[in-house]
Amino acid sequence: MSAAPETGTIYGVGLGPGDLELLSVKADRLVRGAKHVAFFRKAGREGQSRRIAAPLLGDGVIEFAMEYPVTTEIPLSDPRYNEILSAFYADCAAHLQALAQGGEDVVVLCEGDPFFYGSFMHMYTRLKDVVPVEVVPAITGMSGAWTATGAPITWGDDILTVLMGTLPEATLTEQMASSDAIVVMKIGRNIDKVRNALRAAGKFDAAWLIEYATMPNQTVQKLSDAGDKVTPYFSIIVVHGQGRRP
Amino acid sequence: MSAAPETGTIYGVGLGPGDLELLSVKADRLVRGAKHVAFFRKAGREGQSRRIAAPLLGDGVIEFAMEYPVTTEIPLSDPRYNEILSAFYADCAAHLQALAQGGEDVVVLCEGDPFFYGSFMHMYTRLKDVVPVEVVPAITGMSGAWTATGAPITWGDDILTVLMGTLPEATLTEQMASSDAIVVMKIGRNIDKVRNALRAAGKFDAAWLIEYATMPNQTVQKLSDAGDKVTPYFSIIVVHGQGRRP
Ligand SMILES: C[S@@+](CC[C@H](N)C(=O)[O-])C[C@H]1O[C@@H](n2cnc3c(N)ncnc32)[C@H](O)[C@@H]1O
Ligand SMILES: C[S@@+](CC[C@H](N)C(=O)[O-])C[C@H]1O[C@@H](n2cnc3c(N)ncnc32)[C@H](O)[C@@H]1O
Repeated sequence: MSAAPETGTIYGVGLGPGDLELLSVKADRLVRGAKHVAFFRKAGREGQSRRIAAPLLGDGVIEFAMEYPVTTEIPLSDPRYNEILSAFYADCAAHLQALAQGGEDVVVLCEGDPFFYGSFMHMYTRLKDVVPVEVVPAITGMSGAWTATGAPITWGDDILTVLMGTLPEATLTEQMASSDAIVVMKIGRNIDKVRNALRAAGKFDAAWLIEYATMPNQTVQKLSDAGDKVTPYFSIIVVHGQGRRP
Repeated sequence: MSAAPETGTIYGVGLGPGDLELLSVKADRLVRGAKHVAFFRKAGREGQSRRIAAPLLGDGVIEFAMEYPVTTEIPLSDPRYNEILSAFYADCAAHLQALAQGGEDVVVLCEGDPFFYGSFMHMYTRLKDVVPVEVVPAITGMSGAWTATGAPITWGDDILTVLMGTLPEATLTEQMASSDAIVVMKIGRNIDKVRNALRAAGKFDAAWLIEYATMPNQTVQKLSDAGDKVTPYFSIIVVHGQGRRP
């Protein structure tokens, strides 16, 4: 009669902004040693976190791709949108739970820092009271982005506000006007709204656009030099603080 | 006749919040391999970044401690304060420059991420057009802090505002009231002001106090459970966002 296996741990492992050398020593160790990895991705894509981690994955690693259900035809405000996503997250969590209860550790690959606007949080809240879950913090995409600009983001007592491009234009403008340093994420199709808000707040000319920070295809330019180009998912806009400095 | 040595590089290396395993792979490599390290510290102290990096420093590493001039008797608003600090930074930069021009690489040890309210920025701006300077981003103290609370800092399109305890109370209150998630750093003797602002903004009961995040002496508690204790330099207050979540 064999004893029930010891419950495994679900690790939410932040990979940082993209450069493999910017993984933490701990994340590097966990990813290289993983027997099971899981990651979110859009259907039909490799997945950004899978792509970042690929060179570290061992032979024979077992992969669990958590593919977002296609929801483009349903508006965010439709209650069905939440229902579909909620069922999807419940399914993913059940699979991870089963692995852990079968004695397996699972490394969930996360872009940037898992607790900072990440998808892993949806697994974390569902699993944390059920099986052991550990979160490994990481370098955020925004740290990669402001480092790429070659200028400090904040000095002295500068106020930093982090905004999502999905916010209403009036909110963006108001927040931008009352902050010293600004980071805008989740830009994509919201780029025109973000541009308008930056203009209204008088910060457009000071804004930088960073695409694919720390990745091989990184670009850094003044937003005003980017024309009306549509930005990819991995884009961040940064306005540097100009605070006290001796 | 020997050729002039090739100019060395000044590396501003972020060490992360404190846990040695949370250094990036790159920072770990640079610190272990360093012949010269430099770091800021208060006179008479070991220095936090020196203490974090200590187990990685090689035998015979040459250390340059940049000790802040004692300025406690001069108010921040006094122009002499800026003059003294400015002269101090110029001296430090001159020393680093001389090392680089003598062909030596120097690793400057930085708490958290160098470009995020860090001291290295004062070296960076003085040296970047003179000798090669490279900045290695890192996990911020705040990522360490919110991970320690066991709850995500931001969801969906939550707004995150990062505030220094040194700001005026009215500014703190106003900013806290108009943000979803809040991080307060540089608290120390400003703790009462920060508490008042959190109360006025209706966020006091939701606030967490994290001391020495990811370090062996880490503590995590509701701010309301901390009584009127004075917090150490390495303290962060966090209010979690409560945004959209399926
Ligand atoms: C769902 S959020 C995830 C944030 C992530 N957890 C972090 O800590 O950076 C996705 C957004 O992060 C930003 N992002 C993350 N990494 C990036 C990178 N390397 N370059 C540019 N943008 C990045 C983009 O704005 C993207 O829309
Ligand atoms: C001069 S700022 C440096 C910030 C640093 N560059 C970073 O990225 O976190 C110093 C403040 O950082 C915060 N801090 C940094 N690391 C911390 C840690 N491990 N635990 C608590 N607070 C920390 C404290 O609020 C402290 O007053």
